[in-house]
Amino acid sequence: MSFLKRSVTCGALREEQIGQEVVLNGWVYSRRDLGGLIFIDLRDRYGVTQAVVQPEDAAAAAATARELHAEYVVAVKGRVRLRESPNPHIATGKVEVLADEIQIINRAALPPFEVEDEVRAGEELRLKHRYLDLRRPSLQRNLLIRNQVYQIAHRYFAGHDFVEIETPVLMKSTPEGARDYLVPSRIHQGLFYALPQSPQIYKQLLMMSGFDRYMQIVKCFRDEDLRADRQPEFSQIDLEMSFVDQDDVIALVEGFIVQLWREVLGIEVTAPFPRLSYRDAMTRYGSDKPDTRFDWELVTVSEIVRACDFKVFADTVAGGGSVALLNAKGCATYSRKQIDELTELAKRYGARGLAWMKINEDGVQSPIAKFFSTDELAALRAAAAAEAGDLLLFAADSFTTCYSVLGALRLELARRQGIIAALAGRYDFLFVTEWPLVEEDEANKRFVAMHHPFTMPFEEDIPLMASEPARVRARAYDLVVNGHEVAGGSIRIHRQDVQQAMFRLLNISESEAQAKFGFLLDALQYGAPPHGGIAFGLDRLIMVLAGTENIRDVIAFPKTTSAQSLLDDAPSAVAQDQLEELGLRLLADKEQSH
Amino acid sequence: MSFLKRSVTCGALREEQIGQEVVLNGWVYSRRDLGGLIFIDLRDRYGVTQAVVQPEDAAAAAATARELHAEYVVAVKGRVRLRESPNPHIATGKVEVLADEIQIINRAALPPFEVEDEVRAGEELRLKHRYLDLRRPSLQRNLLIRNQVYQIAHRYFAGHDFVEIETPVLMKSTPEGARDYLVPSRIHQGLFYALPQSPQIYKQLLMMSGFDRYMQIVKCFRDEDLRADRQPEFSQIDLEMSFVDQDDVIALVEGFIVQLWREVLGIEVTAPFPRLSYRDAMTRYGSDKPDTRFDWELVTVSEIVRACDFKVFADTVAGGGSVALLNAKGCATYSRKQIDELTELAKRYGARGLAWMKINEDGVQSPIAKFFSTDELAALRAAAAAEAGDLLLFAADSFTTCYSVLGALRLELARRQGIIAALAGRYDFLFVTEWPLVEEDEANKRFVAMHHPFTMPFEEDIPLMASEPARVRARAYDLVVNGHEVAGGSIRIHRQDVQQAMFRLLNISESEAQAKFGFLLDALQYGAPPHGGIAFGLDRLIMVLAGTENIRDVIAFPKTTSAQSLLDDAPSAVAQDQLEELGLRLLADKEQSH
Repeated sequence: MSFLKRSVTCGALREEQIGQEVVLNGWVYSRRDLGGLIFIDLRDRYGVTQAVVQPEDAAAAAATARELHAEYVVAVKGRVRLRESPNPHIATGKVEVLADEIQIINRAALPPFEVEDEVRAGEELRLKHRYLDLRRPSLQRNLLIRNQVYQIAHRYFAGHDFVEIETPVLMKSTPEGARDYLVPSRIHQGLFYALPQSPQIYKQLLMMSGFDRYMQIVKCFRDEDLRADRQPEFSQIDLEMSFVDQDDVIALVEGFIVQLWREVLGIEVTAPFPRLSYRDAMTRYGSDKPDTRFDWELVTVSEIVRACDFKVFADTVAGGGSVALLNAKGCATYSRKQIDELTELAKRYGARGLAWMKINEDGVQSPIAKFFSTDELAALRAAAAAEAGDLLLFAADSFTTCYSVLGALRLELARRQGIIAALAGRYDFLFVTEWPLVEEDEANKRFVAMHHPFTMPFEEDIPLMASEPARVRARAYDLVVNGHEVAGGSIRIHRQDVQQAMFRLLNISESEAQAKFGFLLDALQYGAPPHGGIAFGLDRLIMVLAGTENIRDVIAFPKTTSAQSLLDDAPSAVAQDQLEELGLRLLADKEQSH
Repeated sequence: MSFLKRSVTCGALREEQIGQEVVLNGWVYSRRDLGGLIFIDLRDRYGVTQAVVQPEDAAAAAATARELHAEYVVAVKGRVRLRESPNPHIATGKVEVLADEIQIINRAALPPFEVEDEVRAGEELRLKHRYLDLRRPSLQRNLLIRNQVYQIAHRYFAGHDFVEIETPVLMKSTPEGARDYLVPSRIHQGLFYALPQSPQIYKQLLMMSGFDRYMQIVKCFRDEDLRADRQPEFSQIDLEMSFVDQDDVIALVEGFIVQLWREVLGIEVTAPFPRLSYRDAMTRYGSDKPDTRFDWELVTVSEIVRACDFKVFADTVAGGGSVALLNAKGCATYSRKQIDELTELAKRYGARGLAWMKINEDGVQSPIAKFFSTDELAALRAAAAAEAGDLLLFAADSFTTCYSVLGALRLELARRQGIIAALAGRYDFLFVTEWPLVEEDEANKRFVAMHHPFTMPFEEDIPLMASEPARVRARAYDLVVNGHEVAGGSIRIHRQDVQQAMFRLLNISESEAQAKFGFLLDALQYGAPPHGGIAFGLDRLIMVLAGTENIRDVIAFPKTTSAQSLLDDAPSAVAQDQLEELGLRLLADKEQSH
């Protein structure tokens, strides 16, 4: 096992080292045997260096070189010299190592796919052999960016007096919103721990413990049916601060983002970031995480159509709903088929249909034009600043549905028109503020917290908590960039009476509140400071920095959308005695089914 | 909720600020009402500042001040002035704030115990109200030390080109040694994830992925019946390096320790640290993690007693066992009762009894003296360098038992003699090396890995793996300080054939090896670099730095020795439908039993 140890890495050599005797360790990236000369590209995390063997001067080395295949681990000893044909694409491209000794440290079987970015293999195969996939330059780069983010976060927040504190992974199950992952207790059979969906309550307790400023990069867990951009375990940069208001938290976050973009991408982001109320974000962009890199703002036309003959619109307005439109500039050319596709999209977002108007030189072309008076049509065109060639798309529904539908169409059309692609490399940050404290869960006819049950309402709205919950605004704020929510936070409730009012509003009985959150309610009565914080979705943040849409590309060992690890085959069956120790039995036949 | 926000912390004010108008936020630490003057000590994480109210000048502030009780959260506005009777014990002791305005931000009920280090309340009560206990200066200090360790680790290892990478928490269950915590899968009913006992395999895969240097501060989990110094979830500083040998890893660790002790304790530790082979550690100190701050080395006397008439000794030697003694200097005065206590201790460590000799001016006093010739007694005294007043304690047993018993006695007697106490503040580091690769598990008549199944044997011992496993030495190393193991590591197996030989040696069948570790064996065939690493037991390390014997004092939210969180009452019962979703049922009556 003793081997010829490297004196330099494969990314180190420059012209300054010419003439030096060096030893390289690394993986064979490629080998080209020209008979009189054998070239070997040697790769490690730091770079690629070309080694060359001259058979007539180094017979043994040449013999070994001819045994080499891709991904062999080797040591190369030799002298650095100027390269005849430099390679401008790599940092070491001006030099090469004339090898007089080559040692095979470990052989490699033929890899199931080629270790390069233009890999043709499917993702499943690559996930199964993740240790090979991770050798590809693009994944190496993504994880190095991730490492940069860790280091900047540690430095930045420590520099602002934050204390890094670990919160428990084995905690109490208090299902709110998403499903908990459960961990059966062996010592206390029949009882369970839960994996944290977030350290929310613990970080608030740390504020009540007087730590003043808390930070943690922490794994969180949600047992959800996964969407493409979700993972069962995900990471957060988690923050909490005492004696602060919203502006303090936001200012701190802005400083961090400026630092990140400067060090990772070399881009100067200008702070402070714009702020948009939830209501404005919805009515102008149809999203609570709007992509503000392009305009195409939505236009509310409820007043214009209130009295029109098109029943759908008039009834919606009469019923307290909203009617709005998106002016898809230059899309009047869209075919029936394309408009049908947009209609399908609209329906997926809850619309019953999609009304449209094409603005032509010679007037408005639309199935519903006949229901509008000339004045109404003129008013609509004016409101939309519509010109010939534009396509107006309408939604009429409840506030949320109406604007969400148009927001989805806005993004889809911007994609189709190549607008998004043209914006690559641009980053528009903003904070979405003044969120509703709760939203109505139509299905269960109850209110649910828009962020979480510990979010502080606006002081002046507290009296409304009992009377008009839907109108209560929360001191919550999300950080959005290019249509991605990368962080979400709020000022928290530090008053026991307000916390109790919140539980009542959420239909959590006194006894249930005691059983689930009694320890928090207790803590609130022993001198809780005003506090607030925020949590960054680390994986999402790194996706934005790395410019990838695939969350698995920024995680070393990700799981599939069905929460499996194809590498180690988790989850897997366990021994019967393991279950018996836990006092558990699988429901009938479940064992056989696997 | 709007409140008077602080302009400075309670630790900030010095003479330089005299005359300035400031606002403090903090907790009422104490209040002394002298009628004409009211003194309030205000506390936050940064320190304590005295505020004083003069009722005749500030009636309203005085009225509020008189409402205050311990742990109230308040804002104090006023002017900094020189303090008449300075307090040399606190950094702000030269000044005070003459308050003209006091605001109660949040009230506090009477705490169940006093928030001070001389707390009288039992640990159970304090764990239940952890958010109050954590306000105590000593626990604040411990967690700030912990934070320092995080920051130094991040900086030191990033400075040495380590890449911070997160490994999965939901992984495959491969029970080796300790019990896994299991996490039932809902999507794949009947299958389970396990929480990592260590990221061992993943960090090795990262080396095979070419990341070269990996670092992570990571939570690990063991479902064991806990000892006082164990927690079900614990933290590691986890490292792995490619293209290295043992010396590279050790040198890096030494640099880290020097940095830690310098920055945290202001102590200059000298590296390199001494190295002791496992065998020497056992025969000289009776421990694989010896406290080398004091001598009292064990003396092997097998040869001297080989032919003596004391059957126990002679038979032990004849049977291949060991006979050794501890010279307890100056303990000849020990009473029968004290010796009985030592005998009990010896038995707890597996001894059948405890032979002893008191060395008096007029010779040897011992129940077994009669079995030894004058020459043998003289030889024993000489070997032990025994003087009048010494107490010789003997053990005769298998190698491990013989020396472990004497090692335990050595520590116990050093404690009783006040030797340990006298060593406070001294730190003796050493590496224990050349560990046996495996040890025999008498109970199950099989070999088990001394560290773990991925540890590389000495190259020259590899042939012995099949023939004489017990004699194979491993390239493993533990870092020990003052009798605590604070880190353990090894060079890993990077050759598939050696890994397979190891599994065979451990009685793991080909098929079992494939089922459990197939992905590792696969990875080993695609170009695995030589690699090794180490993991620090972070909680233990911080216990040493903080000088506490209670592991719960260095963890923000610890669990009891029965793995319960008294704060949030985890583990707890969960709803039936949560279990049904997981395809699980509790074994009969388990539900009722809680």
